[in-house]
Amino acid sequence: MKNITYINNKFIEHTKAKVSIEDRGFLFADSIYELISVFKKEIIDTDQHLNRLNSSLKKIKIKYNFNKKKFKKIFKKLIKLNNIVNGYIYIQITRGVSERKHEFPKQYKPTTIIFTKHLIINKKIYEKGVKIITIPDLRWLRRDIKTTALLPNILSKQLAVEKNAFESWFIDNGNITEGSASNAWIIKNLNTIVTHPANNKINNFNVIEKPFNLIEAKNAKETFLTSSTLSVLPVIKIDNYNISNGKPGNITKKIMHLYNNYIDKNNTSLYKELKIA
Amino acid sequence: MKNITYINNKFIEHTKAKVSIEDRGFLFADSIYELISVFKKEIIDTDQHLNRLNSSLKKIKIKYNFNKKKFKKIFKKLIKLNNIVNGYIYIQITRGVSERKHEFPKQYKPTTIIFTKHLIINKKIYEKGVKIITIPDLRWLRRDIKTTALLPNILSKQLAVEKNAFESWFIDNGNITEGSASNAWIIKNLNTIVTHPANNKINNFNVIEKPFNLIEAKNAKETFLTSSTLSVLPVIKIDNYNISNGKPGNITKKIMHLYNNYIDKNNTSLYKELKIA
Repeated sequence: MKNITYINNKFIEHTKAKVSIEDRGFLFADSIYELISVFKKEIIDTDQHLNRLNSSLKKIKIKYNFNKKKFKKIFKKLIKLNNIVNGYIYIQITRGVSERKHEFPKQYKPTTIIFTKHLIINKKIYEKGVKIITIPDLRWLRRDIKTTALLPNILSKQLAVEKNAFESWFIDNGNITEGSASNAWIIKNLNTIVTHPANNKINNFNVIEKPFNLIEAKNAKETFLTSSTLSVLPVIKIDNYNISNGKPGNITKKIMHLYNNYIDKNNTSLYKELKIA
Repeated sequence: MKNITYINNKFIEHTKAKVSIEDRGFLFADSIYELISVFKKEIIDTDQHLNRLNSSLKKIKIKYNFNKKKFKKIFKKLIKLNNIVNGYIYIQITRGVSERKHEFPKQYKPTTIIFTKHLIINKKIYEKGVKIITIPDLRWLRRDIKTTALLPNILSKQLAVEKNAFESWFIDNGNITEGSASNAWIIKNLNTIVTHPANNKINNFNVIEKPFNLIEAKNAKETFLTSSTLSVLPVIKIDNYNISNGKPGNITKKIMHLYNNYIDKNNTSLYKELKIA
């Protein structure tokens, strides 16, 4: 079965989906994106992601005829066409095609791309937890904008892979800000979970949004990371320093469970299947 | 006449030159570029640009079969095919097409794109000089790499345009680092020209590479900016503060002249034509 992708009002074969080399997304990373998780055919947090997409468009001033209903229709159609059970929806919007000049074109048609991918869940990493490394945060200062100018992120992720780790956490001014493709969290004690401001996503728990540093992370009771595709993933090693005896901790497991209940309307828990609940 | 572009060993019609939406240059700005000026059919500083291109590839670890001779052949062919007299050659190399994952693909074929454009020289700006504004430098810290993660640059250039200025100069830690699409220079006195480290390009003059701040810039005898396509362009206003009485200064004119002699093998000076020499 062919994978179908949406590009500028058309549904076409994924491998044939192309953009002009003068698309500003390609030439300048003048472009924003969202990635939305699909779990058991359910789209997770659609409205939150679409709201953030719209906010990103506004932050980089792409004039766009934003229509939530239209996006939702396209998502559903693609999930059906591509038979996505577990996977994700990727959305990217650019300032369109025009001659290479830094300033915005006076007139432009934004490029809209939406594709889906299947995801196979790697159960092992949830059961065992993952190792992360820390590196200096060299990213630009508008980290609140979800742009495709992701070179610092891919270089950091690659460095982690080369060091046999799962992910890199960025350190800026002593504080852990984010991971290269995920958010960083620490559990200080039974009731206090800490994440860097603007990373907060889970509301079921007592979450404090404030900066934390590497020493706090290494001394944390437990640590974990989150992302749309990974949900909640235990971190058991930071820079070769064991966290919670090198095993996923009980509070992390509880959060995994709570989050799973939230995303799984049928309550057939991913983590129950993993036998860690 | 159709504009011809080079893409992955093929010469095709420019408007038909496209890349996959899963090209890492499009998804991640996992990609570097160079822009080389063409003046009276001569390619300016080819070796220097190709050396920097190769250095950029190495800095972001794109494995590439780098062949200077091949690049030069393509440049000449495109200039001929597209009848470029004054214009530029744009080269972009990405880590190729693969499923969206932050880490580098184990195997990949880089995407190579080379296109040319005609440039019409706007004589007025050389005669009158231009206004620039200064803004905080929010860019990532690897400013030594010429990547296509240019969103901060285009947002800054756009801001300049919206404020009726020609360009923005970035200020980091009090110092002027670069312009959004050009380099920043100040002339302190008759023999001392200052530019931020790594911006140095003209060797004909006594050039000091050291940081300078906004006060030094505003108190400078003269100021100018440089880029491959703009050559040397007088700056006569910084943030509404007049430099050298709001007119291109004599030392700047001399540098324009010297640079022109350097790029113009036939010595039919651009600036002579402009009657400012």
